Amino acid sequence: MTTLDSIITDSTRLYIGNAVPETYYKDTYVKNIKPVHAVALPVTHQEVQALVQFAIDKDLKILARGAGTGVAGAQVPLEGNELIIDVHLMDTITELDEETLTLTVEPGVLVGDIHTYVESKGYFYPPDPASKHSTIGGNVATNAGGLRAVKYGTTRQYVREMTVVLPSGESMTLGSKNIKDSSGYDLKDLFIGSEGTLGITTQIKLKLIPLPKASQSILLAFDTVQEATDATLAILTSGADPSGVELFERQALRYAEQNLGYPLKSQVGAAYLLMTLDGNDAADLTVRAELVEQIAKETALESHVLTEEEAAKNWALRDNILLGLTVFTEFELLDEVVPINKFAELIESTKAMQEKHGLNVLNFGHAGDGNVHTLLMKDDLSEEEWTRRRAALLKDLYQKVADLGGLPSAEHGIGIVKKEYMESMTDDINLKYMRAIKKVFDPDNRLNHGKVF
Amino acid sequence: MTTLDSIITDSTRLYIGNAVPETYYKDTYVKNIKPVHAVALPVTHQEVQALVQFAIDKDLKILARGAGTGVAGAQVPLEGNELIIDVHLMDTITELDEETLTLTVEPGVLVGDIHTYVESKGYFYPPDPASKHSTIGGNVATNAGGLRAVKYGTTRQYVREMTVVLPSGESMTLGSKNIKDSSGYDLKDLFIGSEGTLGITTQIKLKLIPLPKASQSILLAFDTVQEATDATLAILTSGADPSGVELFERQALRYAEQNLGYPLKSQVGAAYLLMTLDGNDAADLTVRAELVEQIAKETALESHVLTEEEAAKNWALRDNILLGLTVFTEFELLDEVVPINKFAELIESTKAMQEKHGLNVLNFGHAGDGNVHTLLMKDDLSEEEWTRRRAALLKDLYQKVADLGGLPSAEHGIGIVKKEYMESMTDDINLKYMRAIKKVFDPDNRLNHGKVF
Repeated sequence: MTTLDSIITDSTRLYIGNAVPETYYKDTYVKNIKPVHAVALPVTHQEVQALVQFAIDKDLKILARGAGTGVAGAQVPLEGNELIIDVHLMDTITELDEETLTLTVEPGVLVGDIHTYVESKGYFYPPDPASKHSTIGGNVATNAGGLRAVKYGTTRQYVREMTVVLPSGESMTLGSKNIKDSSGYDLKDLFIGSEGTLGITTQIKLKLIPLPKASQSILLAFDTVQEATDATLAILTSGADPSGVELFERQALRYAEQNLGYPLKSQVGAAYLLMTLDGNDAADLTVRAELVEQIAKETALESHVLTEEEAAKNWALRDNILLGLTVFTEFELLDEVVPINKFAELIESTKAMQEKHGLNVLNFGHAGDGNVHTLLMKDDLSEEEWTRRRAALLKDLYQKVADLGGLPSAEHGIGIVKKEYMESMTDDINLKYMRAIKKVFDPDNRLNHGKVF
Repeated sequence: MTTLDSIITDSTRLYIGNAVPETYYKDTYVKNIKPVHAVALPVTHQEVQALVQFAIDKDLKILARGAGTGVAGAQVPLEGNELIIDVHLMDTITELDEETLTLTVEPGVLVGDIHTYVESKGYFYPPDPASKHSTIGGNVATNAGGLRAVKYGTTRQYVREMTVVLPSGESMTLGSKNIKDSSGYDLKDLFIGSEGTLGITTQIKLKLIPLPKASQSILLAFDTVQEATDATLAILTSGADPSGVELFERQALRYAEQNLGYPLKSQVGAAYLLMTLDGNDAADLTVRAELVEQIAKETALESHVLTEEEAAKNWALRDNILLGLTVFTEFELLDEVVPINKFAELIESTKAMQEKHGLNVLNFGHAGDGNVHTLLMKDDLSEEEWTRRRAALLKDLYQKVADLGGLPSAEHGIGIVKKEYMESMTDDINLKYMRAIKKVFDPDNRLNHGKVF
């Protein structure tokens, strides 16, 4: 029988049994120490295929992994004895095809490295998840969204083609460099967002667009979240075409201000919108910025068209919300999504839940696309109280999300931590067919078993 | 046992056996007279569901149909004895939700009526197939593309949610009003473009965007198709951001000129690009039009920034290519697609095929997205010669498309007429899993059986 070290002959790319480093038992927030069979770090499609075949022969479950920056537990072992296939060494940017605006990458390339590379060539890869250290393979597996989805869409819109190794050991290429396609079922979109349960991606061709030549940031301050989201809706229908509309509460920002040591440009009000307009023509940006200010005049307490330096400093505060919080307390980060006109109602509803359950709650998120990041904060609660109150609050919160027509995950995925909410918020018939499709590709439930549903 | 007239109690909405009008045996180009069991025209989701249940009970195959404007035979009966469910009376625009920019429609609403309605309210539904008389249900079934895909994408990008009746008689809602989604498998995109083989759509929620306030058309003339497509690539990477880039050969246009009785604004050269820029600011359009003219200066023989009246007249010529041709000859219309940098090579290759097979070939298409509409013309060939030469030419043509990394259908679908090419141009493993997914939803192969693959 084939052995692992005959597939991965370089011993620095193979950990067996007790030699597996602890990092493989956790992602950003979830830890589950269930000793695995081995961790292999392939560098080619063929090695991935051989590893899958090995797992089939030995009847091992398989877990694919990238940078380990996930936040939903999709990358941690569930039962133990899995073979973890860590693709983060497959990190080559293979080809920039300027004639079709396509970038071919291996799955382990970091999304931040893709941004840097393509922008240096005058191109733009719009999906912009907060973690620039996440891999593109992971971004595809969760259909990562981020800040610019309101104008540019999510990862799904930028995957032209992907090559996968199936749980059967077969290879399949999904999609193509063709822009239009009405030639059979869309298998590609089925794999995008499937959190590693259908196949292991070994190559991805991404769609690029020309890099916008100019941008303009604007900060608006409001008395209430409701006023901020009303303004968001007005801005979205105005034609101002923002590429990012971030909403955050004053409360959520104060940790970032303390951590970075400087204040937000506006110190009035309880809710802020920080937005970017991008384009190719400075004069056009000015017109659109005026349109935003015109709308803001109705209800905003303050409106600031930011200089480049101010934009950098204020966006750094926004980006520092989570990191700032880490210094002060343990927390749980959610990524629920509701239709954009329910954004304020969802955020407001968390105030009552905070009171009811005795647990501090903060909110920030992507107002332009309805994706709220609710933060539950441990503060000085005991481990036991924290677990109990959090579970009770989450039940209420996801019920509210469901009532508003929302979904448990906008961009982080379901993994382990949102499974029960996913199951309760999804129609039985949809779950039935999702399970049937899983069975088509993975009848032995070998690949990332027990994740998602 | 339930009878059809107990489900459809209004006799004007039911044709049984010999009473079925001939129109139900054909689409735009394909005719297949195989007497069907009956044609029922439901007006509610519940009626569709009851009809599917009736077909299950009687073990009838089912064929869903809309306006009958298809061009690939997906809507014609294959074996006879089918129950045709014609949804074109389900033609209500149910709700415009201005807070989420969502339009709820029934499947029988014509895409032209959607354009008219939403534009009157200041919104925009970008997908723009040439046939404004096609239904939105049909547009979703084929992932219709059209003129504006280069900037705005195809129908797929504008379906937020759809409700379907499955071949089992069950109902399922796919997608939601949420903009982001990382909550389980993407079943919605699987159904989009599946040509009525997985379910019958009874309601669709479409994404709208704000209506651009201004547009500017430009006509460029070139000596060769290669020069025209080289210019297209340069324009696409320039940031000029055209919302349509149509390429046509002089030869293809002369029928339209004869038919409409006036000439194209440019009479030099052999290949033309007609494009539109849209936006909200006239000054910005001027800047972008100058960018296009700057690029065109390199190789174009003529470049015309068109007045509104000129734009209308020149676009009418483009839109009249097919209709103009109908007056002069029978023809077959294709919709193959290749990566955009192979567009010219594909068109040029048809010249040699024309010589080799003794069959006149014309080309026009969407240069911005690689979608060529090749026209094979019968002229005065005998029926027998036309069939023989056409089959031989198509074999060569689709081989060339495959060699260039293309697909048999960009936007019309596979239906019956492209099945053999689809099968030869698709990897066996992809076909295997497409068939397995068909079996998951339709184990009895009841719904639009024998179409696509």
